[in-house]
Amino acid sequence: MRRHFAAALLGLAASCAQAQFARAEDAVKYRQGTLFVLSQHFTRIGAMVNGRVPYDARAAAENAEIVAVLAKLPGAGFGPGTEHGSRGAKPEIWTEQARFKEQNERFIAEATRLAAAAKTHNLDQLKAAYAATAATCKACHDAYRNN
Amino acid sequence: MRRHFAAALLGLAASCAQAQFARAEDAVKYRQGTLFVLSQHFTRIGAMVNGRVPYDARAAAENAEIVAVLAKLPGAGFGPGTEHGSRGAKPEIWTEQARFKEQNERFIAEATRLAAAAKTHNLDQLKAAYAATAATCKACHDAYRNN
Repeated sequence: MRRHFAAALLGLAASCAQAQFARAEDAVKYRQGTLFVLSQHFTRIGAMVNGRVPYDARAAAENAEIVAVLAKLPGAGFGPGTEHGSRGAKPEIWTEQARFKEQNERFIAEATRLAAAAKTHNLDQLKAAYAATAATCKACHDAYRNN
Repeated sequence: MRRHFAAALLGLAASCAQAQFARAEDAVKYRQGTLFVLSQHFTRIGAMVNGRVPYDARAAAENAEIVAVLAKLPGAGFGPGTEHGSRGAKPEIWTEQARFKEQNERFIAEATRLAAAAKTHNLDQLKAAYAATAATCKACHDAYRNN
């Protein structure tokens, strides 16, 4: 009885998560769009951190702010029913939901710290926060993305 | 002489605009991604404004904040050299740059007002700001988008 109740609750939560998007394709387009756009802005910070372009504190802060806002979004695009929408997403995303969610939360936390570090206009703080954020990108890609 | 200088400056500005993206395809993917993601969040506010889902002041404010941040982004994806990347973008975007830019600025201003209106938690203010923002979406789509 209790088990049925839990299953019903889970089903309700799942349908709510899906209700954000009219179609599974929209969820896939949404997660791909958010990840692509944030990667563009993250890469611009990387170019400064790695010395490929001169450090511009204001530009770094603007890019980091966008990354921090966008980091919160893609998670919603990996809801139930969106497993088969893209070649890049491994099935483990849905079979290891708790672990996937935990990695996603870690990424969001580091992206938030990156925005704060960029606002200090201190390049060393930016470098440290960039490396920490990049590590969360890599961990998730290694575990959950087909290359 | 003055004309050559102006042309050189223009060329410099154009190459800077393009330098944001490694390839023209990235600029196209970027503008499509930002516009798609913001349309998803804008539509969620629309559903409340039009009474299709119950008004949730907090959700409306969160969605409007994302719309306001994203509204500033797509413009950069329409730089010189990106004219032939998508079927949806009309050539007038590049032949009427000043007018296109003006419409884009108007959209950004209304999206910023939408976020402020959503924060008041007053549904009437949200409705007015939503309609004003939607009008700027429509104006730009009517003029510059192939359907």
